[in-house]
Amino acid sequence: MTRPYNFGAGPAVLPEELLTQACEEMFNWRESGMSVVEISNRSKLFGDLMDEAEADLRDLLKIPSNYRVLFLPGPARAHFSMVPLNFLGGKNTADYLDTGIWSAMAAEEAKRYGNVNIVASGKNSEYTDVPSPETWQLSDDAAYFYLCSNETINGVEITQLPDVINAPVVSDMTSCLLSRPIDVSQYGCIFAGAQKNIAPAGLSIAIVDEALLGNALPITPSVFDYQLQADKKSLFNTNASFSIYMAAMMFKWVKKQGGIEGLFTINQRKAEKLYDAIDSSDFYYNTVAKAHRSMMNVPFLIRNEDLVETFVREADAAGLKALKGHRYVGGLRASIYNAMPEAGVDALLSFMQDFAQRHG
Amino acid sequence: MTRPYNFGAGPAVLPEELLTQACEEMFNWRESGMSVVEISNRSKLFGDLMDEAEADLRDLLKIPSNYRVLFLPGPARAHFSMVPLNFLGGKNTADYLDTGIWSAMAAEEAKRYGNVNIVASGKNSEYTDVPSPETWQLSDDAAYFYLCSNETINGVEITQLPDVINAPVVSDMTSCLLSRPIDVSQYGCIFAGAQKNIAPAGLSIAIVDEALLGNALPITPSVFDYQLQADKKSLFNTNASFSIYMAAMMFKWVKKQGGIEGLFTINQRKAEKLYDAIDSSDFYYNTVAKAHRSMMNVPFLIRNEDLVETFVREADAAGLKALKGHRYVGGLRASIYNAMPEAGVDALLSFMQDFAQRHG
Repeated sequence: MTRPYNFGAGPAVLPEELLTQACEEMFNWRESGMSVVEISNRSKLFGDLMDEAEADLRDLLKIPSNYRVLFLPGPARAHFSMVPLNFLGGKNTADYLDTGIWSAMAAEEAKRYGNVNIVASGKNSEYTDVPSPETWQLSDDAAYFYLCSNETINGVEITQLPDVINAPVVSDMTSCLLSRPIDVSQYGCIFAGAQKNIAPAGLSIAIVDEALLGNALPITPSVFDYQLQADKKSLFNTNASFSIYMAAMMFKWVKKQGGIEGLFTINQRKAEKLYDAIDSSDFYYNTVAKAHRSMMNVPFLIRNEDLVETFVREADAAGLKALKGHRYVGGLRASIYNAMPEAGVDALLSFMQDFAQRHG
Repeated sequence: MTRPYNFGAGPAVLPEELLTQACEEMFNWRESGMSVVEISNRSKLFGDLMDEAEADLRDLLKIPSNYRVLFLPGPARAHFSMVPLNFLGGKNTADYLDTGIWSAMAAEEAKRYGNVNIVASGKNSEYTDVPSPETWQLSDDAAYFYLCSNETINGVEITQLPDVINAPVVSDMTSCLLSRPIDVSQYGCIFAGAQKNIAPAGLSIAIVDEALLGNALPITPSVFDYQLQADKKSLFNTNASFSIYMAAMMFKWVKKQGGIEGLFTINQRKAEKLYDAIDSSDFYYNTVAKAHRSMMNVPFLIRNEDLVETFVREADAAGLKALKGHRYVGGLRASIYNAMPEAGVDALLSFMQDFAQRHG
């Protein structure tokens, strides 16, 4: 059976060779005679795996030595609580940039724990643009500045941090981490759920400047305490072994693709092709401002809305899976993460052209 | 290669046929053409899987209809926070029975959120016995009564709830759920991490009486809010797909073994054999009171302590894995979960006898 192209936003497509390796090792991982999921997190074998994963991730992202890398249980959404619980201490106000559904939800969650100042919101433009930094109403003394670097649902991405930001930057990079080079030192904390560019769901990763650790509010659940997790080398609790195992493989796979720089070149090309085809069509369209279009998640619409369902059904039959837009925004969405080969984008483009001809 | 017998306390051995099925379906789960870990949690396919898993678990445990079944991200340890956050509301005091390391840690965590009354502690007996219910100092108006039904590290199990308890019972059943029949209606909330009798780590399950829901403290992180998770059918956030998938398979496997009653018969026999061999030996010993010995986790010691390391090494070479005791208590431990075949226990018994003869 030919493997279809899976454009789902996450849990998302994984490189075929990772799945193959997972099967090959299912009964005998590293000469243990057991599966990786049957082994104690505290065994030397598993500890070595976590060390390798951390070293490879540090290497890929050039993470400075004063940052801690945490492999944490649970979804990115748990960090919506962890961020204020860990970083609000002493200051009580945080700045949030509202650029889409995920940053709005993160801000809403933070209100449980302190004052949330929305510096600017893209809501009035229906999240099709990022408000210009000149309009941002920053606090004088925010504990941190929060943004979602890539809004998976709205397809809005912020790749440059404006100079105006006057507090440690916390970014939700769930759907863009490992897709393009970043300068970690510009951030106080980066977090990401695994199920886009990293591994099967069940794991999230946080990269935290040590200077921000140690101020968790007393009400912070222990498993949510970044400092405690750092002290315990991410083994305060039993972790999602399968996800960590696959993440470790993924980091090696990224290296084999030429590292993040190598994938970035391909990712740019994939996204450009797709946006160009949409922009040059009078059948499809995308409403996001060009400067802030996501490289990973490409939402698009059909001028005749009635055709969306047919598109999804016919695409699925043609082996182009999970192209339905998020229920909050409708339309279509092609998520083109690292593991989506360029041939998949080409196949989608052919299908789109053909579909437009038949229904245009 | 012959599969070794894995006596690890968790992540623990899984039935061979589950691992085989996981491999067979890795590239094409249920005719999707994709792996189960590459598919949206919100797809119909995955939703059906969760429904099946819930229905099978309800069936196995005869869960009454006024209980909600939650599939939650993260470890059992997260519930040490979730329990007080969800159930303390309005009352502010909870009763804890301290029977070992895990219940002690749960009590410690609860102190962040309210008053914790330790009704009795086994600490003075080094957690080798459960204090008699006549000695328990119960609160008049506790929000709940907490116990750990099976202490994985200390090997202490409580199978009967004494009549004296005067509040809804919350039990950590991480290492005993599915091992013996229970009467769910006696509990307000049962929770369990997956990595013993259920599935690979990354998932925990909560079974909660609806009457206890809806009182979460305002500081409760959303992902930790049992009511919210119940409202969202455990899909408030993206879940650990692989663990849920394996749990669904495990529930079907348990049914094939004759259900929990069928496994209980085998589990009793496995544990009896092992304890009998230890008790009748002058080489090995176990210090836990007979009435409270764990059926799943059998810690044991060698009178000549110096031989422990040799035992672990030689057993490992003989294909009997992960027999080292927990670092908090030392000695040896054989975890004999549902997936440990009786032949594994027989092999361990032979080895123990041989080892004692050679070193006795």
